[in-house]
This record gives sequence, C-alpha cells and structure tokens, in this order.
Amino acid sequence: MTQNRTLSLSGERFTAVYHIVCKPAEAEARARDICVEQTIEFPEALVTDASIRDQIVGQVLSLQAVGEARFEARIGYPVEAAGRELTQLINVLFGNISIKPGVRLVGFELPESLARQYRGPRFGQAGLRALVDVHDRPLLCTAIKPMGLSPVALADLAYRLALGGIHLIKDDHGLSDQTFCRYEERVRRCAEAVERANRETGQRCLYLPNVTAPAGEIASRARLAKDAGAGGLLFCPGLAGFDAMRALADDDALALPILSHPAFQGTFCVHPDAGLSHGVLFGQLNRLAGADATIFPSWGGRFSFTQAECRDLVAGATRPMGELRTIFPVPGGGMRLDRVAELSDFYGRDCILLIGGDLHAHGPDLIESCRRFVAQAG
Amino acid sequence: MTQNRTLSLSGERFTAVYHIVCKPAEAEARARDICVEQTIEFPEALVTDASIRDQIVGQVLSLQAVGEARFEARIGYPVEAAGRELTQLINVLFGNISIKPGVRLVGFELPESLARQYRGPRFGQAGLRALVDVHDRPLLCTAIKPMGLSPVALADLAYRLALGGIHLIKDDHGLSDQTFCRYEERVRRCAEAVERANRETGQRCLYLPNVTAPAGEIASRARLAKDAGAGGLLFCPGLAGFDAMRALADDDALALPILSHPAFQGTFCVHPDAGLSHGVLFGQLNRLAGADATIFPSWGGRFSFTQAECRDLVAGATRPMGELRTIFPVPGGGMRLDRVAELSDFYGRDCILLIGGDLHAHGPDLIESCRRFVAQAG
Repeated sequence: MTQNRTLSLSGERFTAVYHIVCKPAEAEARARDICVEQTIEFPEALVTDASIRDQIVGQVLSLQAVGEARFEARIGYPVEAAGRELTQLINVLFGNISIKPGVRLVGFELPESLARQYRGPRFGQAGLRALVDVHDRPLLCTAIKPMGLSPVALADLAYRLALGGIHLIKDDHGLSDQTFCRYEERVRRCAEAVERANRETGQRCLYLPNVTAPAGEIASRARLAKDAGAGGLLFCPGLAGFDAMRALADDDALALPILSHPAFQGTFCVHPDAGLSHGVLFGQLNRLAGADATIFPSWGGRFSFTQAECRDLVAGATRPMGELRTIFPVPGGGMRLDRVAELSDFYGRDCILLIGGDLHAHGPDLIESCRRFVAQAG
Repeated sequence: MTQNRTLSLSGERFTAVYHIVCKPAEAEARARDICVEQTIEFPEALVTDASIRDQIVGQVLSLQAVGEARFEARIGYPVEAAGRELTQLINVLFGNISIKPGVRLVGFELPESLARQYRGPRFGQAGLRALVDVHDRPLLCTAIKPMGLSPVALADLAYRLALGGIHLIKDDHGLSDQTFCRYEERVRRCAEAVERANRETGQRCLYLPNVTAPAGEIASRARLAKDAGAGGLLFCPGLAGFDAMRALADDDALALPILSHPAFQGTFCVHPDAGLSHGVLFGQLNRLAGADATIFPSWGGRFSFTQAECRDLVAGATRPMGELRTIFPVPGGGMRLDRVAELSDFYGRDCILLIGGDLHAHGPDLIESCRRFVAQAG
C-alpha cells in the first residue's frame, strides 16, 4: 500500500447500539465484523497503516446478552467518518450492515460536536403548540382524502374539518401532482379554505400539503405552499430521502413545520431481527432530519405495531439528543373516535392524534364528528 | 361527502405483483386490502363517488397460490395515480403496504404510456461497453479504499489499478467529503491518475467518484466530477433517494454513467416475506431511476444472497421494460480472484465483476494482481 499521510483525528466517537441475533460463540466476531464493514470495508489484516486501524475502524465499546441468542453491541465510530453529512452519518450507522441478516440498529448517540451540525426540528413540540395555540392537551390531525377527489372537493372538506376544530389538516400522502388533482390548484384552494375557516373560528388550524416530489421540485412545491398560505408541510423521507427533508427544515425562507410520513419505510422495522428500531427510524432519524412530528401506525389500528414498539418510538422522538428539540409522536393508521380516550391515556397529552377515515363514519355531519373528536381528546 | 367532479381517467393500469403470506382463507381479503391501502386509504364503504371506486381503487387482476401459505396477487393501479413522478410511483407500489407484515413486491409492469415518462439508463449495458471499449467479456471493477487513506494515496492506488487493466474504478461508498479526504482533492487527483494511466495503456478506464451527498450538493459534486474528468458516478439511492439518482441520470449536461450501490437498502430484501424482491429493488427500480449498473453482494461472498436471489436480480436488470435499456449486474461483496471462473460461469459475460479487498491479498504487486484478474475473466 502507498505510504499514507498519518491520520490525526480528534479521537471523538459517536455510538451506535445494535442488536445482533446469533449464537453466543459468534457474538464477538459479529460485533467486530460490524466495526469493519461500516468503516474500512477492507480485510483488516491488509491495512498496513496503524493509524487507520486505530482511528477509523469502529470499536466495540460493550457487548452483552439481552435475550436468548440476542446481543447488544455498542460500537464507537470516529465523528470524522460521518463528516458533516446526514447521508454519510446514516451510511456509517447502517449502510452495508443493512444487507447482513440478524443486525438491528436500536439507538445511537452523537457527541456535541456531531449533534450541533444538525439544526434538527425548527419547531418541535413547543414550537408547533405555539403555532396552533393549543396547550395542555393533544393536538388533533386529519387528512383530506380519498385520492380521486377534485381540488374543489378537497378544499370543501378542509374547510369543514377546520370549522370542526381540527388543528392540523394534511394532504393524504397519496396526493402529489396528478392530472385529476393538480398540486397548485389543490394547495391554493385548500390553504384558502382553511384560512377562511380560521377567520370564522378564531383558531389557527394549519394546512399541510404533501411536498414529496421529484428531487428538483421539492423546493418549488414548498415555496408554492408557503406563498399560498399553507401552515406546514407533509413529507415522506422514505420516498424522497431523509436529507431532502433536512434541506426543507433548514430553509430559513420557508420556516414551516414538517410532518413526516412513514410511506415506504415499514420494511425497515417490521422484522424485529433486522433493520431499524421504531425509535431510531421514526424518532431519532426524523429529528436529525428536521421533522417536527412523526406519523406512525399506532398499535390497535389496521397495522401491527405493538405497544412496546410505540413506546420505543415515543422515546426516540423525545429522548435527549444534544440540543435537538423533542418532536410529536402522531399515532394514526386506522385510529377511531371511540379509541381517543384510550390513546390519550397511552400517549399522554404530548402527542398529535391522527384520525382519518373514521371521522367520516359517524353520519353526514363532518363538522359535528370533528367536534366530538375535540371533546373526547379534551 | 362533497359532490365531486366525476373522474374520467384513461382506464389504463400498471401492474404490481405481490407475494402475500397468509392463510388461504385470508388471501382474497389481503389482496383487496392492498388495493385500498395503496390508493384511497379510506374505508371503501364510505366512498360515495362511484367513479373513485371504479377508477382509482386498485383491482385484483389475479390471485393464486404459489407455495404453502403464500399467494401471488397481481394488482392493477390507474396510471394516473402514479402521475409523472418516480416518488409517487414507488408510493403506489409499496408505500403504506411496506408497513404491513407478510407482503412482498416481486415485480411490476408499466404500460408504454407510463414507462415512457422515464428515460431510464442513459448508457445501459451497450453504452457502458462502448465507453470502455470492452466487448464479449465481463467488465472489471474495483474500489479505492480503505477509508482513512489520503487523496494522494487513493490516487496512487487508482493509477496502479488502471495500469493493471481494471475498467471501472469507483470510490469506496464510505468516501464522501471527510476532513481527512476532501471530495474535491480526491476527485481531481484520482481522475488525473486514471487519465495518466489510460495514456500509458491506451485503455479507457473510468473513475467513478461517490456523489451520494446532501440533497443540495449532489448536482454540484457531479459537475465537479465531470469537470475533473471522471468517467462516471457512484450513487447510493438508499441513502439519497431513487429520484435523486434519476435527476443525475437525466442531466444532459452531465451525461455520465451511474453505478448504483446498495448501502442502506439491505433491509428491503433480507426477509423473503417482506419488502422488495431482489429483482425489483436492485433491478427494476434502479433501471427506472437511471442506473447503468447495479452493485450487489453476490452469493458466496461475505453477505447472504442466495443463487436464486441473484438470478432474480439479474432478471430485474435485464427483463423487458418498455424501451428502458438493460443494465449490468455487478456482483461484489467479498468476491475473490479464485472465484472469477465460477462467477463468470454463473453470470455470463454480461456482468461487471467487482473485486475489492482481495486484489490486495496477493502480494505487494497490485498491478500484477489486476492482470491476474483480467486474465482470469478473459
């Protein structure tokens, strides 16, 4: 190997916590394998430069059994390996190792020097509460849908939902810029409708259009939303990338709260022996990438998350992460009016309750159904 | 519900093929559930507009058992639901349903009207062969690594690899823009080194720097690569988004071949009952998003893909998809010189063989090791 300029890194490391599913005799080698795979990705014996082995390769900080054939490894990586880029930080945390079965990333901790490279959520829980002026109780969210409705019909829905007292009205995440419902017309009509309702109610309901879009159009859709008077944005980082969401969150000219939607991310968490824990995926990564609230399918709906997984998610959304703000968990995915009390008990007041279709299942008076939602969550 | 303008869509549909793992008695309901979840995401009984039920909701085209407790459902979605956006096409194919266990997307077919919205690979197999002027045999690829080497050391490596006859020299995907190896210096030095080697050998080796980067920096890094004389680009769509890769591929001012790397995508395919098949993930989606070659960990290396999964991947890279070009499978992930003959037998001549670390395991003369690689793959 060519003589390398000797490295002199800071020695500071960030920590990834993995669960490894394997036989006890293999655990140490598996942990060690992660250290190499996620950094040099090169046969360690062939690395002639001692500074690379000492300073670049991951280090097993601890390894302990946490279940039958399940081990928890804490691995430290040099902060310089992650650079100043979210894409590369995620790459070091779980890039190649995602391809090896039996490894799950269940948490990570960034030292101050690395965490401060991320502004994180612009609003977070406190900022979003201030925007809608709702305190001491859960915020209420719904979606305008179904796909196939015209912008006029969706705006009429948004108007009635806002009159009924909903705080956050988002596009269904399947609404993009289709011929039967163009983005610009929808956003202008819905933002106007919610503003009109706000003038009548005196409330500050926000409309959040979906700006998940081709790479070159995300920023322009977000600007159009801002110009039209939308109060926030819906974004699917699984479809368009975590870092694209970060760019939206960091845009000072935009300065809108972001609701993150889990589309195309489910595979990362559905198998407990692979991928990312709910706390990492929907909590920690969304916060690093600037989401102010994180939508997920709660236990008890039409998806399959357990109560423990939902608790882990809430922990990821609220655990200390440097100076990053805490964000709202947004339990949804088939929630119903008759479960609001139970959800409030489970999630407490610091959440956003999301009910979609069920608001339409209680008779033709949508405004009245919203008022029931408001009353039950009060 | 508000009176909706009656839809009048084309009636044309694209087809998604899912495997559903469930009891026989549940298969039809599960398939039907996908139709709704991926489109209106709304209780079907509450949809008062018949045109939405008829024209928007997915339709089960066929459903058949393909194994014990395993069913294959072909579901048709209106082309208009996917709009003209790759992000939204992926959303309809596997957005919310990714969150339900026991569903795997194993293929999709786009009608001409939808397929022609995607230019796909600019070069594909034939174009990439023309660029490096290598015909009738596999192309050879390696990576410059390990992380921790300086730009000078990496350029020296690249020079020797190119002298040895390698056709494609890529950055290790862990090289981004770190303080110990800045992007610009690395790319300028490595591109110059490969060009210098090409002048000596008369060959047309390409250097492909990694342009996986923050959303706002991908295009500028790619332009810098082009200006520096790099012959192609490495990109990780799992980290930065499939559509960001499509934007690179569609950039006529850039016009560089793209090698797609699977970092952070493994979770999508490691469990056979969830996520995306290898053919969809590494083949079809990469082609739609403009990759010219798709790196994956081959069977028999340090990862765990089976021979059947690798065959499925090759099929996805080469099956007819409208006018989209076929792309090269790039088996890697711990391949060794002593397996070249076996790999050539398995993948045939239309592949790119990727050997990384093992080129360094056969003594100090790297150029000679490359020549062995060339000879064995001949």
